[in-house]
Amino acid sequence: MSDLNRKVLDVLNGKTVTPPPIWLMRQAGRYLPEYRATRAHAGSFLDLCYSPELATEVTLQPIRRYGFDAAILFSDILVIPDALNRNVRFTEGHGPQMDPIDESGIAALSPEGITEHLKPVIETVSRLRRELPTETTLLGFCGAPWTVATYMIAGHGTPDQAPARLFAYQYPEAFLRLLDFLADVSADYLVSQIDAGADAVQIFDSWAGVLGEVEFEKFSVRPVARMIASVRARRPKAKIIAFAKGAGILLKNYRQATGADAIGLDWSVPLSFAAELQKDGPVQGNLDPMRVVAGGRSLDEGIDAILQVLGQGPLIFNLGHGITPQADPEHVSDLVRRVRSFG
Amino acid sequence: MSDLNRKVLDVLNGKTVTPPPIWLMRQAGRYLPEYRATRAHAGSFLDLCYSPELATEVTLQPIRRYGFDAAILFSDILVIPDALNRNVRFTEGHGPQMDPIDESGIAALSPEGITEHLKPVIETVSRLRRELPTETTLLGFCGAPWTVATYMIAGHGTPDQAPARLFAYQYPEAFLRLLDFLADVSADYLVSQIDAGADAVQIFDSWAGVLGEVEFEKFSVRPVARMIASVRARRPKAKIIAFAKGAGILLKNYRQATGADAIGLDWSVPLSFAAELQKDGPVQGNLDPMRVVAGGRSLDEGIDAILQVLGQGPLIFNLGHGITPQADPEHVSDLVRRVRSFG
Repeated sequence: MSDLNRKVLDVLNGKTVTPPPIWLMRQAGRYLPEYRATRAHAGSFLDLCYSPELATEVTLQPIRRYGFDAAILFSDILVIPDALNRNVRFTEGHGPQMDPIDESGIAALSPEGITEHLKPVIETVSRLRRELPTETTLLGFCGAPWTVATYMIAGHGTPDQAPARLFAYQYPEAFLRLLDFLADVSADYLVSQIDAGADAVQIFDSWAGVLGEVEFEKFSVRPVARMIASVRARRPKAKIIAFAKGAGILLKNYRQATGADAIGLDWSVPLSFAAELQKDGPVQGNLDPMRVVAGGRSLDEGIDAILQVLGQGPLIFNLGHGITPQADPEHVSDLVRRVRSFG
Repeated sequence: MSDLNRKVLDVLNGKTVTPPPIWLMRQAGRYLPEYRATRAHAGSFLDLCYSPELATEVTLQPIRRYGFDAAILFSDILVIPDALNRNVRFTEGHGPQMDPIDESGIAALSPEGITEHLKPVIETVSRLRRELPTETTLLGFCGAPWTVATYMIAGHGTPDQAPARLFAYQYPEAFLRLLDFLADVSADYLVSQIDAGADAVQIFDSWAGVLGEVEFEKFSVRPVARMIASVRARRPKAKIIAFAKGAGILLKNYRQATGADAIGLDWSVPLSFAAELQKDGPVQGNLDPMRVVAGGRSLDEGIDAILQVLGQGPLIFNLGHGITPQADPEHVSDLVRRVRSFG
């Protein structure tokens, strides 16, 4: 166990902790009335991300309410394109939007000004480490190059990120340049988060599932491996979780190929396959967020199935995707209680 | 080989045909100028589906242009909810919409009137068999119960069909009743298509990929198996392709568990895994539709990779999802030519 009793960190170091530590993706979010109250005072969503005071507050809210074993920095994967002046905006009911980038835009990308732009986020990390209970693991994060690139190419989200898939086929060199650029600036960003007090970081490749095998290797695995290598070259002890949502069977070699310490599992990953993946190291996941909305027996059955199959190995209990706004906060209490009564 | 030299049918009977037969999902569609011209005269999209004359015409268009080895009935998976009076409408740019169904709506579902409502579609199948070249395999189709149910519950498409997942957790009995009902009326519908001249039928489970392991078994596999058993009880020689998009590793037992003759593969299925699945029988797929948009080297590489790995076994060459409106018709010519030059 770590000196500070940070259980998530212990699991990331390969230990089996019983009961497993728990946190939830998007745990600081709209399902919480206290989040909605803070959000109402924050101006735009990005204003909230860039306010160290308010971002710290909303990050702490679910820790106060549920005592989760990890707090995750409140921010968004799209602060990177925002720092690159892509005119990112979050419009209620429309999802994120930004100016789509083309070949010449990619050629003109420069890391200048990114660090300055992201300073408030790093300030939030510092504040969080000071204000969090010592036993709470602090997680930083960023988006994986492929996932961030899909938004930068299309200018918005799409059902299967076809615009980025097409761009990658049409302009392979420019696209690889974009991925490498994002890998490098994201690695710098993660190093800053670690230096500011993040115990570990998570890389979100939320759109890994729309890639064919060859493209998964080139566009998802390779850039994430590059990022992780870059972080580790500077911070050899960095602990890293990589979450390739929808990657399915391609998760088989994902940990080894990327160098991640732990791998996140979405709710479509069969538990028998998850158990295989756990033989090579820690896993995180993978309850269907809709079970938290439903509550009751569906929730209990989902929790028990995961604990039964994965509870004897290194596991960070989590959802298979972010918690949704319609989740009842009482169901989250039920979830935490049930996980903590295991073993 | 079949007496009629219907190559797709031969593959469905387990034979290896070289070069492999080819057709494309959504081959009668907006990428073709002749489709857009017919569509402009047809009123609503559903009017087109229910006009034997126009639906026959658009089904034949890609056969005339490319000589595909199979024609697929022009229709939509949502004609079933439409026949159930769910007020289905297709609004340009909004995707399909219908009145969402609830528990009492499910309890009140009745098969009465469905056959009558779908008569024009069956008439289209008859016309097609008369007008198609004898060597062209005619495919009928319907949606899988899970996929059709996701639209019926939500009233529209969503990024991950969360409303249906939630409904299934909250009202498991009503949801299973809905799936069984859809399985039964869809089986009747497929039998009518076969009797009208369809050589084979495809079951589209386009949203199989959003299900966890247990739910995939209960909501996707079981109802599709029920449909297939019902069709086979009446038409023992029926040839059936089942396409569970996004099912990934769960495809391993899908053919055996559903009783399908062939399984469709989306573009995210790794070719090494596809080759394993082909050992048990015919497979269909799985080129990324974006490669057809890109054309050139990306298209050639994608085609060659599939032919190299799957070309020595029973294969129906196809895309991994429907062809998109922005595909260049010339690229489709290139695709057909390259596949036909194999072996």
